[in-house]
Amino acid sequence: MAELLSIILAAGEGTRMKSALPKVLHPVGGLPVVSHVLRTAQGFGSKVAVVVGPNHEAVEAAVTRFDPSCQIARQEQRLGTAHAVQQARAALEAASGHVLVLYADTPLVTARTIGNIVSKLDDGADMVVVGFRPGNPTGYGRLLTEGSQVRAIREHKDATDAERQIGLCNSGIIGFRSDALRGVIDRIGNENAKGEYYLTDAVELATGDGQRVDFIEADAAELVGVDNREKLAEAEATFQQFKRKEIMAAGVTLRDPNSVWFSWDTEIGRDVTIFPNVVFGPGVKIADNVEIRAFCDVEDAVIGEGASIGPFARIRGGAELGPNVHLGNFVEVKKSKIGAGTKAGHLSYLGDAEIGAKTNIGAGTITCNYDGVNKDRTIIGDNVFIGSNASLVAPVSIGDGAYTASGSVITEDVPADALALGRARQENKPGYAPKLKQRALAKKAAKGK
Amino acid sequence: MAELLSIILAAGEGTRMKSALPKVLHPVGGLPVVSHVLRTAQGFGSKVAVVVGPNHEAVEAAVTRFDPSCQIARQEQRLGTAHAVQQARAALEAASGHVLVLYADTPLVTARTIGNIVSKLDDGADMVVVGFRPGNPTGYGRLLTEGSQVRAIREHKDATDAERQIGLCNSGIIGFRSDALRGVIDRIGNENAKGEYYLTDAVELATGDGQRVDFIEADAAELVGVDNREKLAEAEATFQQFKRKEIMAAGVTLRDPNSVWFSWDTEIGRDVTIFPNVVFGPGVKIADNVEIRAFCDVEDAVIGEGASIGPFARIRGGAELGPNVHLGNFVEVKKSKIGAGTKAGHLSYLGDAEIGAKTNIGAGTITCNYDGVNKDRTIIGDNVFIGSNASLVAPVSIGDGAYTASGSVITEDVPADALALGRARQENKPGYAPKLKQRALAKKAAKGK
Amino acid sequence: MAELLSIILAAGEGTRMKSALPKVLHPVGGLPVVSHVLRTAQGFGSKVAVVVGPNHEAVEAAVTRFDPSCQIARQEQRLGTAHAVQQARAALEAASGHVLVLYADTPLVTARTIGNIVSKLDDGADMVVVGFRPGNPTGYGRLLTEGSQVRAIREHKDATDAERQIGLCNSGIIGFRSDALRGVIDRIGNENAKGEYYLTDAVELATGDGQRVDFIEADAAELVGVDNREKLAEAEATFQQFKRKEIMAAGVTLRDPNSVWFSWDTEIGRDVTIFPNVVFGPGVKIADNVEIRAFCDVEDAVIGEGASIGPFARIRGGAELGPNVHLGNFVEVKKSKIGAGTKAGHLSYLGDAEIGAKTNIGAGTITCNYDGVNKDRTIIGDNVFIGSNASLVAPVSIGDGAYTASGSVITEDVPADALALGRARQENKPGYAPKLKQRALAKKAAKGK
Repeated sequence: MAELLSIILAAGEGTRMKSALPKVLHPVGGLPVVSHVLRTAQGFGSKVAVVVGPNHEAVEAAVTRFDPSCQIARQEQRLGTAHAVQQARAALEAASGHVLVLYADTPLVTARTIGNIVSKLDDGADMVVVGFRPGNPTGYGRLLTEGSQVRAIREHKDATDAERQIGLCNSGIIGFRSDALRGVIDRIGNENAKGEYYLTDAVELATGDGQRVDFIEADAAELVGVDNREKLAEAEATFQQFKRKEIMAAGVTLRDPNSVWFSWDTEIGRDVTIFPNVVFGPGVKIADNVEIRAFCDVEDAVIGEGASIGPFARIRGGAELGPNVHLGNFVEVKKSKIGAGTKAGHLSYLGDAEIGAKTNIGAGTITCNYDGVNKDRTIIGDNVFIGSNASLVAPVSIGDGAYTASGSVITEDVPADALALGRARQENKPGYAPKLKQRALAKKAAKGK
Repeated sequence: MAELLSIILAAGEGTRMKSALPKVLHPVGGLPVVSHVLRTAQGFGSKVAVVVGPNHEAVEAAVTRFDPSCQIARQEQRLGTAHAVQQARAALEAASGHVLVLYADTPLVTARTIGNIVSKLDDGADMVVVGFRPGNPTGYGRLLTEGSQVRAIREHKDATDAERQIGLCNSGIIGFRSDALRGVIDRIGNENAKGEYYLTDAVELATGDGQRVDFIEADAAELVGVDNREKLAEAEATFQQFKRKEIMAAGVTLRDPNSVWFSWDTEIGRDVTIFPNVVFGPGVKIADNVEIRAFCDVEDAVIGEGASIGPFARIRGGAELGPNVHLGNFVEVKKSKIGAGTKAGHLSYLGDAEIGAKTNIGAGTITCNYDGVNKDRTIIGDNVFIGSNASLVAPVSIGDGAYTASGSVITEDVPADALALGRARQENKPGYAPKLKQRALAKKAAKGK
Repeated sequence: MAELLSIILAAGEGTRMKSALPKVLHPVGGLPVVSHVLRTAQGFGSKVAVVVGPNHEAVEAAVTRFDPSCQIARQEQRLGTAHAVQQARAALEAASGHVLVLYADTPLVTARTIGNIVSKLDDGADMVVVGFRPGNPTGYGRLLTEGSQVRAIREHKDATDAERQIGLCNSGIIGFRSDALRGVIDRIGNENAKGEYYLTDAVELATGDGQRVDFIEADAAELVGVDNREKLAEAEATFQQFKRKEIMAAGVTLRDPNSVWFSWDTEIGRDVTIFPNVVFGPGVKIADNVEIRAFCDVEDAVIGEGASIGPFARIRGGAELGPNVHLGNFVEVKKSKIGAGTKAGHLSYLGDAEIGAKTNIGAGTITCNYDGVNKDRTIIGDNVFIGSNASLVAPVSIGDGAYTASGSVITEDVPADALALGRARQENKPGYAPKLKQRALAKKAAKGK
């Protein structure tokens, strides 16, 4: 297979985002848009050069963090797409196989489309232009084609009425034999209204040289460009549609697919059922036969087979739930490991805890893991019964088979099989309630004065 | 009215569901798809025979549980729809009126459609074929019609170009005079590519006999077949659309209909307002003038007139809320009865409780109903004031007009009008907080070493 | 600029709403539909007369509350739109400039449309009819036009086949020179099937008089009329679409726009990110760089720059959050002021509180603000550490730098820098847990008998 170089253009300003964050760092499916493109290129074992704009240190940093082997090129002035490609000259000179020009703000271009470009190049094409059919083609350059080849790209404003009837438009994504790209890139001029260098002009130069310029078609949906917040939302919606279909095809029930949100890396097993209104942040792996009820927010978590989660559960921070764990209503688990069959059904916060198997965590249990400076751990054994409304003051350890009384504050370790109590004795004052009521009413009357 | 027999074909394998659960047991609107069809048949007083596949004990059990009078027939080999109908021979021999052939994986066929079939049969038709107009008819058999009658059903692959222009397709649902069905069922052959016996062939046999084969049209939406997870989601969406329209027509405000999910049996009164993001599981009845705010999850519950629920409320397990009850944020009620005008506004778990009228449940109240083995009851009277952060350790009873102090653990009964306290006295240690901070910082420093 | 009078017709019965509430008082975006129309008129500095029906005291009260300068006219009998306009005779006699006839059940008519009417009137038109193009024009009156003028309005039933091809329909909204309206209003007759007086007939009278009757076009979406619960939901959906676009255009990320619900007055700063499933009730202002995670319900609240909210947060009742406040999971804030950088991460209720800066509110903290009669305040200083599961019994004050131990009930003021404890000592009973278990099992066995 020919060696592949992807030049990813990331220098656009993105002022229409109205954001202090560069547009290619806005996330889709929990991943910056530029990283989606890097990931797709990586899937083909491609070398990558990213062209960033001036003052785009944040983009450089994000790209390098995601893939340290990426080459970074800087485009100090924004003089058009061909000019941007020229900035990646070092990578281009070294390239021996195919070169793809991709766009950092077009995150959802599929592996299928990249594969189609590569096939055509493998098959002998010198250039491959990616076309698509937008709902409304007005404003787009049209592909003038003959058979499988492109004769020219006609800008909308220069097109005849007949040419404007053409639905197939230029996406801007182009594949080249590296020689072919090197042969045209420096011959592209800037005699146009904006005085910019457009990569699109490569088509005319190449056909003029008698080269073979093919085209392929991609879905309009995968070509959405993130240029303002509405387009960002559209890209997010498209990403979610793709991911939902993929997840359902693998044997997962989504009661209402449109109300379940995935991240780019969410993994879900077979015969999992997900109720409406569930949000998955990055870093989630779910085993088979799990049920996630409505209104759950899960990120950075591993959930074992047969677990039952929610409604109203919040899981995060590297949580690890064993098989058949049950987490119920208004329960938050952070950075904790919970053993098989353990249950925490109601109104609990379990943070920095390690909990064994078949333990019962009573309603209202709080691990008091923070002293204002340190986060300490709570260790709970197997078959423990934590009574309701417990405060477990970390660092603290509760042995296997122990039992803590409801409403207790547990500040010291509890041995295995021990009963721990930390609560006051109840006292009843007969007939006293009406007096309290009188006093409260008197107070109210006094305020009213 | 003629006697009615419904033969429901439930033997499909459903491998595309990628599920250990037979496809006809996957739920739509909280009810297995096969039960939707049973329910619709029941609405016509129909006798029912269900044809199940090999190893479908779970389907048999579910059907019998839903309607013990159903006859079960087994289709040991999957040799086509006509072969499936033959397995219900006992029921068919006994039938004297009309026979409907329905599909267990097509749960949303409406009473209107069934009624239309029956009318045509009552009117003298020998057979009635149900047609529909799919968005894309490719692949479906077309109904060749003359006036109100069907001349033939033409499979897509055998159709001429002209016949492929026909939009009216065969749904597979057919009604018969029982004599007519008995007259053709054993004459259907299997000379086709798959060597299967197709019920569709009954049309040709019947018309050849000079019988009257009518057709009716049904909505494509009601004919969605549950064959993979995407189709399951589509059936769920269609069910929800039907139910939302029905609920709104009865005088209920759904702020955003698309974000409210009903079950098959949800009942809601007039002038109820439901905010976005509310999920109703099975078994919910809501009286007039109730307000359900956002993010509520309600199942198996009765809610009285004028109640105000949520946001973020969870109600379940046979809860009964009286008139004008208010349940607020992060409150769960399970298997409890709550009297008129009682309020539980915040962060409470009320399980296995019986609470009187005009009682105030303070924020953070927990009924400690579980001792690790038994679930015990908490009884609270009228006009009680439960102070915040209370732990009520069941079994326990709190009399009318009583008052429990904030933060108390209540382990013993509280007489009417008594004040109960169960908490420690506060002690202040002046100037001690900075020392604690120093100690915590020293601990952190020690860890850092 | 010519003086403007808006006559808003609000007398419709709305029986199809099946509601005890008059239809024009049903809310869209948290504001009664009639008030949307009032607000749009106010935006043009218009005088307003509202025509209400018999027994519509609630409408009168709502209108007067929203804008005390509104004139109210009563239409005792519902005899048509022209008859309704006649009831506003006092306002009409006094009018010197332009008069708009608007409909209280058509809340989303835009300022752009009103502006277009006014421009045409300023430009010399005597009347301006607002047309629109519904998806299906059947049943609507068609505008017969010549150039920019209306020749006639043809009712659907009276239209020729050719006229029925016209897509431009009558919305009912009309602008008049006041003289022109006065010149026709009493000449409109009721010789029609229902015996009602229709304002539409003004067009024929005016053109007969040789007056200039112009038309403008409005979007069908903005003309949705609230006549039943489904239309109410449609109006709500349209309102939300308008508002979401406006919010995104200003530099806000909505991860899934369709699952964020705004109120009419929601204000959101730049570079705010809003996750799926967030509901904004009325009265919310959010500064720049705030993050609102999934499942939040916010109303009547001001949120400072850089704050981080949710998931699962509930904020209401005039809450004021300073810069960089963090509110986390299952936290409710009501009528409280919270200082810069203060955190309340988990399962807390903060009501009637005033909290300083850089304070940490432990998980499970409850302000016990209610004694059954009075709501008292909790005052917490800067740099305070409230240990987990605290009950703060108001009125109570906790000084700067103070520290309260986990699980404490705080009933008395805590001086600055003091440590406060209010909890029982823990006691361990070795080997006692298995005995408790035995006892529970014995109890269960006894029950079983």
